[in-house]
Order: sequence, then structure tokens, then C-alpha cells
Amino acid sequence: MIIQLTKNIKADDRNLIHEKVNGLGYKTTEVTTQNCAYLIGIGKKELDLRELGGMPGVADIHKVSDAYKLVSRKWKVHPTTIDLGDGVKISEGDFAIMAGPCSIESEEQIVSVLEHLKANGVKIMRGGVYKPRSSPYAFRGLGVDGLKIWYQHAQEFGIKIITEVMQSSQIEDLCKYSDILQVGARNSQNFNLLDALGEVDKPVMLKRGISGSLDELLQCAEYVFSGGNEKLLLCERGIRSYETAYRNTFDLNAIPILKEKTHLPVIADPSHGIGLRAYVEPMALASVMAGADGVIFETHAHPEKAFSDAQQTLNFAESSTLIKKLRATVDLRKSF
Amino acid sequence: MIIQLTKNIKADDRNLIHEKVNGLGYKTTEVTTQNCAYLIGIGKKELDLRELGGMPGVADIHKVSDAYKLVSRKWKVHPTTIDLGDGVKISEGDFAIMAGPCSIESEEQIVSVLEHLKANGVKIMRGGVYKPRSSPYAFRGLGVDGLKIWYQHAQEFGIKIITEVMQSSQIEDLCKYSDILQVGARNSQNFNLLDALGEVDKPVMLKRGISGSLDELLQCAEYVFSGGNEKLLLCERGIRSYETAYRNTFDLNAIPILKEKTHLPVIADPSHGIGLRAYVEPMALASVMAGADGVIFETHAHPEKAFSDAQQTLNFAESSTLIKKLRATVDLRKSF
Amino acid sequence: MIIQLTKNIKADDRNLIHEKVNGLGYKTTEVTTQNCAYLIGIGKKELDLRELGGMPGVADIHKVSDAYKLVSRKWKVHPTTIDLGDGVKISEGDFAIMAGPCSIESEEQIVSVLEHLKANGVKIMRGGVYKPRSSPYAFRGLGVDGLKIWYQHAQEFGIKIITEVMQSSQIEDLCKYSDILQVGARNSQNFNLLDALGEVDKPVMLKRGISGSLDELLQCAEYVFSGGNEKLLLCERGIRSYETAYRNTFDLNAIPILKEKTHLPVIADPSHGIGLRAYVEPMALASVMAGADGVIFETHAHPEKAFSDAQQTLNFAESSTLIKKLRATVDLRKSF
Amino acid sequence: MIIQLTKNIKADDRNLIHEKVNGLGYKTTEVTTQNCAYLIGIGKKELDLRELGGMPGVADIHKVSDAYKLVSRKWKVHPTTIDLGDGVKISEGDFAIMAGPCSIESEEQIVSVLEHLKANGVKIMRGGVYKPRSSPYAFRGLGVDGLKIWYQHAQEFGIKIITEVMQSSQIEDLCKYSDILQVGARNSQNFNLLDALGEVDKPVMLKRGISGSLDELLQCAEYVFSGGNEKLLLCERGIRSYETAYRNTFDLNAIPILKEKTHLPVIADPSHGIGLRAYVEPMALASVMAGADGVIFETHAHPEKAFSDAQQTLNFAESSTLIKKLRATVDLRKSF
Repeated sequence: MIIQLTKNIKADDRNLIHEKVNGLGYKTTEVTTQNCAYLIGIGKKELDLRELGGMPGVADIHKVSDAYKLVSRKWKVHPTTIDLGDGVKISEGDFAIMAGPCSIESEEQIVSVLEHLKANGVKIMRGGVYKPRSSPYAFRGLGVDGLKIWYQHAQEFGIKIITEVMQSSQIEDLCKYSDILQVGARNSQNFNLLDALGEVDKPVMLKRGISGSLDELLQCAEYVFSGGNEKLLLCERGIRSYETAYRNTFDLNAIPILKEKTHLPVIADPSHGIGLRAYVEPMALASVMAGADGVIFETHAHPEKAFSDAQQTLNFAESSTLIKKLRATVDLRKSF
Repeated sequence: MIIQLTKNIKADDRNLIHEKVNGLGYKTTEVTTQNCAYLIGIGKKELDLRELGGMPGVADIHKVSDAYKLVSRKWKVHPTTIDLGDGVKISEGDFAIMAGPCSIESEEQIVSVLEHLKANGVKIMRGGVYKPRSSPYAFRGLGVDGLKIWYQHAQEFGIKIITEVMQSSQIEDLCKYSDILQVGARNSQNFNLLDALGEVDKPVMLKRGISGSLDELLQCAEYVFSGGNEKLLLCERGIRSYETAYRNTFDLNAIPILKEKTHLPVIADPSHGIGLRAYVEPMALASVMAGADGVIFETHAHPEKAFSDAQQTLNFAESSTLIKKLRATVDLRKSF
Repeated sequence: MIIQLTKNIKADDRNLIHEKVNGLGYKTTEVTTQNCAYLIGIGKKELDLRELGGMPGVADIHKVSDAYKLVSRKWKVHPTTIDLGDGVKISEGDFAIMAGPCSIESEEQIVSVLEHLKANGVKIMRGGVYKPRSSPYAFRGLGVDGLKIWYQHAQEFGIKIITEVMQSSQIEDLCKYSDILQVGARNSQNFNLLDALGEVDKPVMLKRGISGSLDELLQCAEYVFSGGNEKLLLCERGIRSYETAYRNTFDLNAIPILKEKTHLPVIADPSHGIGLRAYVEPMALASVMAGADGVIFETHAHPEKAFSDAQQTLNFAESSTLIKKLRATVDLRKSF
Repeated sequence: MIIQLTKNIKADDRNLIHEKVNGLGYKTTEVTTQNCAYLIGIGKKELDLRELGGMPGVADIHKVSDAYKLVSRKWKVHPTTIDLGDGVKISEGDFAIMAGPCSIESEEQIVSVLEHLKANGVKIMRGGVYKPRSSPYAFRGLGVDGLKIWYQHAQEFGIKIITEVMQSSQIEDLCKYSDILQVGARNSQNFNLLDALGEVDKPVMLKRGISGSLDELLQCAEYVFSGGNEKLLLCERGIRSYETAYRNTFDLNAIPILKEKTHLPVIADPSHGIGLRAYVEPMALASVMAGADGVIFETHAHPEKAFSDAQQTLNFAESSTLIKKLRATVDLRKSF
């Protein structure tokens, strides 16, 4: 059960609601976000919402039978829009394009990608400065120094940036020098990190785990939301299966199903999804028709020289072609 | 190695080629299909194709390193077209639509579906008269009696039919009263059935196994082709994964990858793929963008009364809408 | 619902029972096996068994909520024993050992294995004369000629044989010249083959499918049992997963769970299960502790020269060691 | 390549080795652990180890082709023993038993488990004070306060404790008040946490990820080892598959394969592995035969009242029986 509390609820009224809900056999958790204060009741007893609905301090009340509550579309029918400022938004019906290299490598590389994006009207650049790598001996990213240089150039170009956060201690810097914080597949169920991200006022994009279920992904979003941060996006990036013909099994089924289960925007990552350059384009276009609210893909001036993910990174010509086709496909989708 | 033999090769020349290829350390298999005679050489030794290319009786010669040979696109670059007669073809670049109920249930049902397809310009009807069912106590289909009635009506409507073959003894009737024989996921590696289908001159559509790899699917096609039947289609119908939010994991990654590996048409089955009615449309449209040569989906006048697969079957209104959107999406794809 | 009918039930009584059960909203199927006649009622309505229990012709009656009925342990608590004659039995509490080559290759090979088994007190030899192979160009077995030679030698040694059946047309010969018919993983859901095996009076061992669920395996057994053949064994042989460090993921979890769900004997196949010679011994011993009723493994005088499965086949020294350790482990298990 | 450096290597010699290895086209990383200093060279060029072997400061040198190096058994043939003090060791050939509740709940519960373990001669108690939970609204553990009470009682009983670490900030307390730090499946690839654990002198047990490959698990161990901490154990706890008859697919194949790949002890967790109380015993006994160096399982005085994992937790009677059978099985294994 989700109880939305009124803006200026009195302490006494709040206590009364708690007592009442506890008395009905429900465990209560209070949630205060950028937008609102909520009281979450967890329990299984049958109850008559009217008993609660009339209490002072209750703005609205909803039953949600899913294990996740605040991220459910059963409660909040209106889709969430992520507003990055300067007119850059990610919202249902529209289609956000995010592109850039796997890793931030150098100032020269940053500028070349920004120029490419600018020329193609793309407003959000991706790139990693903290890189989760399977081997401890591999390149782990330029860190905060690289981030600052990147952010400065991006601002000059009027382009927003999305980058991965790997641990709580990085959050402060990332909040200063980026626009969206991404939680990678390997940290999908790093609950302490999710708790910490609940405390900031910055959009967070959660990638599905390596073999994450859709319910788990939604519960992870519930961690951040119930921690206080409503600015959330979800990302399908391929799951692990027995098939070895591609890097991951990009699971487009997830897209329409997540769109029905949650009010949060759903982004497709075909680069990690299928993991092979030649097939990024068809999978990206397919994700539009599957109903995605946006796409994130990897591009680099010279993919063959990229520090990481070379095999799944598009060159700028491929990227430009993809962007044009994405827009035409989105236009067709809007016409339906 | 694939050696295409000349049309009227002499027995002596044939023997000489065999001896030569065996002498090079390769095991030989002769293949004669509707179109051509081939000699397949299996082995790993390095060889100079020029040694063989000049021999009398050799029309052409190709190295193919994959485990499958005759179905590989490395050898036959030109895509295979399946010609069902009366101008109905399945071919690359175009997009075939096949639709109909899971099971053939009654004459009334047959006619209602044929009228729906006719009204929407669909030329191929699907339906099962032999039904593989998990439980021995479930409805197993109307058998050959249902097939004959169906075929007769379909001919009157000028519509072709595709239906499942479960065992060799059914092939004779199915060849008489249908246009495409489908091998289901559970029989994907029923090698004796594949052998038997190699001996007929009728198109065969092979579905990927429940957890079939793409290489296994191509090897299964190789069984039929090397048995003598080149008229083959492949079908992606979802694989098994840990995710329980949908019936199967419809694997759109398979489509662009199969298109690159083989010259055979690749069909998408979103009904079995995701297995939930509400999501058949987005997944069908996505399959167009992924590069499929056609789609097969389930429709019924009253899905809730269907004998099987009710939960994934579209009603006629949904089906008509999907067909229109499919055509618009194919048009966009052609414009790229 | 399972109704066991009395031995000499009158036709009138049988009809009355049918009518009564149908009248309760249950679909009926009659099953007559080597042992007994049954009437299976499929339906979901609540009912009072006492209404049926007193009818003439009803020997016993059981509710079974599983999708499978006759193979369920909820109905038949006493475990099934497979009696191969000459004192060779497969039964709960005891532990049957079956061993032999992947493929039957030659008379010499047959005799060498028989001698090895005889020397180690093993009473059942495995081997394939019909081989399901991924590639149509691979060795497909010696067929019935090989089978006859094998069976003749095996009888001289007093050893029983188990071999794979791939299609219905092979059943007649296999019933004459073998003691157990095995259905391989790829034919696990070849329902027509299962139907045909229901009609013979010969033990059948069903392997779990490549990605078969335990419920599917039990339903496949239900096919054979409801076809009339109660002489069934189940076999765990590894499932398909994402892990590439071994051939299959030998799933020992299946063993105690199947033992609880069904009264049929459960056999472990560690050779296919893990697929790597060095690990067959630990996995075979583990299967004893997991509760298996027997094991089937591959052995050959010269594994490196075997026509198939060389990488998972034990030599005779390894086989002898394994057999000794298996017996010691079974002894310990019996002492618990 | 792994170069073991001599204890008192001179700075100049160290520099010379670096230069030499870099000059051969290898990237170098220095590793200093509790035991030794190493220089890891990552590269693919062919080289003659004798060029390096004679240099001052080189104690030993090994080629290791795996992606993981220091945890490989190709380099360190002698198995690693984890010494917890007071004669409690985890080592190959022997078999360590760790048992206790899922969550630490209360002082009374702590003492009841310690008494049970003491009575059964078990030297290591498991239990969680920081609990990773799918839902943010579930019980998350007693934290450091619970840990201190637990540790104090455990010391009085002479019993060591193993407990989960979820984030770097917990490490300091956990090092003071526990004997082994466990990294859970969801943090398996939390690389920053692994880095931090590399810096402490305390044994760490790494659980395989939800769908972790064995190579990934070994690379995660390499993170900790290359961070400076050689005191590592690995734990198989079940992987995710399509099968729904059990909670996880306990993957006993992992045990003999890990034992061959690495010198680290390998522990089996049948409680999470199969996740159902009735089957914990057979899977635990099977893990002995598969070659595990120890087992960790869940027990509680009143499993039905446990705060978490009730369905997979043994009561004390079941636990005592299991411990006796484990010891008998280990004795048999030693006799082989």
C-alpha cells in the first residue's frame, strides 16, 4: 500500500496514520523524495482503503500487490519524465539518443565525439571514467580528472553526460560533473550503492543485471526511489544465455513488459545487448518498435583503437546512419 | 568443401572426383537436390582448390569452414526464394505474413480465418492438425481429416497453408494437402524426421529448438538440404531462459545473425516468442527492423475460446491492425 | 484423478464409471498397461472421492494434482522395480551400474567391453547402434546388423543391453535384440515416439531434454505409461547453461527431487552430464549421495580411438576404479 | 607471467626487471601480499623465460596462459590452507563444516546455535548481520551491534565466525569482530569492494555470482589476491537456470573443475544451492564426493521462525544428522 501524504502534514497526523496502518497488521516505511512524502505499508491482510482515505494528512492511497511499490505503474499511471535542463528531456512517446565511447580516453577523443554528436543533433553523451573490468590488470578508466575535462567540454557543446558510478565514494564528484549516473549490470544488486543514490537529487539509470529478472530490476529501482530519489531510468542491456553467437542475449521482450509494469523510462543498449558492431543497427531499430523510450550506443572515431569494447563500437559514419534511421523509425511509431 | 557437379556429369568423372577428394584426406558425401548435384568433402587438411577446379564434371567449388555447408551464405551468396506457386513467394527484401489459429478446430473456424486473411491480403494461413502437447491428455489435433477440409477451403480462397509435421508417416498426406511443412521446436533435432523431409519436394520450415543454438538450427537445415530438399525456411520462436515474465525469450538477435550465416529465409514467430497477446504487436514490428523475411502469428475469431495458445492469440481486430503496421514498417525498411 | 479398475471389470460397470466421472466435469482417458487398467480423469472441479469409491469395478482411487498422474509418487508410493530377467533388477535402495562405449563400433570392441564388464561384475552394457549426430555427415551407427552381433555376444556373457531408439520403425528390432530402450535428450519430447513406446512390453529409459524441465520429463514418462507401458526409468544427463567450462551442466538437484515426485527409478549419466573424462568419477560418486538408483557411464578400451564422445569416455582402468568406489559409496549410503 | 621476487630485492634490481619485462612487450603490475612480492606481466608475445630467470631479484618465474594468474594452480601447485588460529584450518584433503542461521537475530539465537555447534564439534559459525535483500522493505540485519555480541559469545565457545561484507565501510569492524569475510553472490563483481578486501589481512570467501562463470569467479579472486590478500576461499552456491523446481541450480560440476584450476579451497553451499530443506542433506553429501574442501549450511533452532531463508534452513536434529553423515562420507573419500 502506498499512502501519499499531504505537503504540510502535521506531526500528530503522521503519527496517527502510522499507528493506524501498523494496527492493520502492516509494516510501515516512510519515504521522502524530491517530489513528495509517502508512507509504504507492507503486509498481506485484506483492508478497506476507506478506513485510511479520510484521515487528515492523507493525500491519496493506492493498493499495489507487486513486491515493488513506488516504481509500479499500477500506482502512478502517468509516465515519469527525466528533465536534464536546457530543454533536454527523456520521456515516453519521444525517443532519447545517447551515444559515445565505452571509455573516456583523452581530450582529443572527447572533442571528436562531441563534434560528431553536435553535428547529428544528439544531446546526451555516454562514456566511462570508472570502468568495471573482469580482469584487475585491465584499463580502469581516467577517473575524476578525466571526468572534469569531459564535463567542461560537454558544457561548451551544450551536451549532457551520462557516466557510470561504481561506489558510493564517487557519488559526490559525479553529481558535480555529470547529468545522469549509471549503475552497471555488475552493480545492479549492490544495495548499499542503491541506498546512497537514493539520497541524491540527480537522475540515475539502472542497468538490468547480468542475469537479472525484470522483477529484480524493479526492486532495485524501488531501493533508489524509496531512498528519496524519483529520477530513475531503466536500461535493458542483454542477459546471459547459452548461445555463443553473440556477446549477450539482447532481450527486447523486456521493453514492452517494463513499459507496462513501471512509469519509469526504459532505455535500450544494443551495443552491449548483442555486442557485435554489424548488428547494433538492426537491434537499435528493433528497440524503437519494441517501445523503448531511448537508446544508448557506443561510437568512437576509430573503434579499432578504442581502449575497450572495440568489437561493438560504431564508427562515426555508422553512427550517423543509425541516428537518421532511428529518427525515421520513431516518426513511423508516432504515426501509429 | 562443396563441389557443385555439372548437370550431366559422366559416371567416370564422378568417380574420379570422389577418388581425388578422398585422396586429399576428405570424407565425401554425395547430395542430389531438386536443383543440383553436389559432393561434400569433410576434412581439415589444407588444400589448393585449383587441383580440383579443373576436373571434368566440376561446375564450381567452395571452401566452407562452418560445420554446416550447403546452407551457408559463404557458399551461396544469393538468397533462397521459396516459391509456393500462384505468385506467392517468400524472399529476402520482401516480407511474408503467415497467420492463423494455433489449432485447426472446425470448418467454421477455418472459414472465418480464411475470410479474415483474404480481407487483409494475407496469402499464407497457419494452423495445426497434429499438435505436440506437453500432456498426453490434451487435445492433439483433428489429424488428416481436418487437414483435407482445411486445404479444400484454402484453395478456394487462393490461400496457401503451413502446418506442422510430427513424424515421417504423416509426410505423404501433408505433401498432398499443404504448402509448407513445419518442424516444431520439440522435433528440431529429430534427425530421422529431417532425413525423411530431405526426400520430398515441398518447402519445410524449421523452428529453432527450445534451447537450440543457431549452429544447431543450421545443422538441422543441413540435414534436410543434404537429404535432397533445398526448399527451406528457418524460424525464430523464442528460447528458454530464467526469466518468468514471459513464456519464452523471443530472441531477435538470432535474426540478423542467421541472415548473415545462411542464404535461407528467416521467419519470426512473436506469438510463441513472447507468448503474451499484448506484446505480440511490438515484437512483430521489432522483428521487421531486425531484418526478418517474414512473420508467423496466431489469430482466431475468439481467442478466449481457442483450443490452445489462447493467451498469445490475437483477435481479428488486433490482427488487422498488426498487418497494417507491419506493412508500413516494411515500407520504411525498404526505404533505408 | 486416477481410478484403478478391478481385474475383471464388467463392461457395464466400466461405462457407469465413465459416465459418472464425465458427469462430474472430468475428461476421461482409459489406460491399460502390463499391470493394470486405469481411468484417468482430468479436471479441476472439487469432488468427494467417496462418491466414486464405492462403485463396482473401482479397485482404488487417488487425487493427483500434478499435470502428470500415473508416474506420480503421490499415487503410487511404492517404488517401481525394473526386472530385466536372470536376476538383473533396477530398484530403489540398490544401485545399478550400466557402462559401455558411446557407439558400438566392431565385434572386437563389443567383446572387449563385455569382458571388462564381466570382470567387474557389471550386468548391463550401454552402446549406440543408432546415433543422433548434430552433423548429417558424421558416423551414424552400425544399425541393426551391429545390434544383432552385440546382442548375441551379450547373451553369451549373461549381460543385458541398453541402447537408443530414434524412431518408431526401429522399435520392433530393438525389442528383439535389447533389454532397455533409451530415448535420447533430443527426442525427449518426440511425442509420437513416446506413444509408440507405450505399446511395447520392454523397459524404456527417458533422458531429460537438452533444456528439459523436470515437469516435462515426468509428462513424457506419462505419455509412455498412459500408452500402456509401466516399465520406465528416468535419466538426468545434464542441462544447457551459459557456463562453457564443461559440456553440459550435470544437474544433480534433479535426482532427489525426481525421487520425491515419482515412483520410477532415476539414473545418473555423468559422462554426458559433465562431459569431461577427468570429472566423471567425482560426479558419478556424487550422484550416489544425491540418491540415484543407478549410473550409466561411457567406457572403451581405447577412448582416444572411440568413434564418438572420446573426451568423456573412461578407459578400463578408470572404469574399474570408478566401479569399486561406486560400490563403497553405495554401501555407505545403505548404512545411513 | 608471474615473477616471484626475492624477499629483500634491491630497488635497482626491481627496476631492471620491470624494464626488461616491459621491453618484451608485457604490461607489468606489482603485487605485494602477506606472503610475497610478485610482478605480473600481461601480454601475448612469445618469450624465453630463461632471459628473465637469471636476473638478480627473481626468485621464480611461471607462464600462466589463463586470464587469472596468481590464483591459478598452474603456477602454485600446492593447495592454499586458510589458518583461522587456535588449530582451526580449512585445507585440501580435510573438510571444514560451517553452519548457522541465515541472519543473526538475537543473543538467545546466537547462543542456541553456538551450543548446537559445540555439541557437534563444529568450529565455524555462519550468520549475517548485513543482509542483502531483494526488497528495500525487508529486514536488513542487526549490523555491527549484533556482530559484537555474536563475536564475544563465539570467542567464549572457541568458535570462529564467517559473515558477509557488503561495502568497504564495513570492513574495519568486520576485521575486528569476525574471522572470515564473505562476499555474496550479488557483490561477486563489485570490483571496488574486492579491491578494498585486497588490502586487509583477513580470510575472504567469494561466492560465485548469480550467473557467474567459473572464469569470472577466478578473476574476482585475482582482484583480491593482486590487491595483496592471499587468504581466499571460493564458494559454489547455485546458479540461475530455467528450472523452477528448486531455488537455484546447485552446480556441483564447479567443484572438481575449480579444484583443478585453482589452489584455493572450494566450499559448497547446498542451502542456497538447492534452496529447499529436504534436499540440503543429499546435496551436501554429494558435494563431499564431488571434492569440496568444506560445506556451509543454514541451521536454526526453529527454522519456521527464522527472519530469512526459513525454507532452506535445517533444524538442529537435521543438522546433527547431516554432520554425522558428512564425516562418514569424508572418511570414505579419504580412504579412496
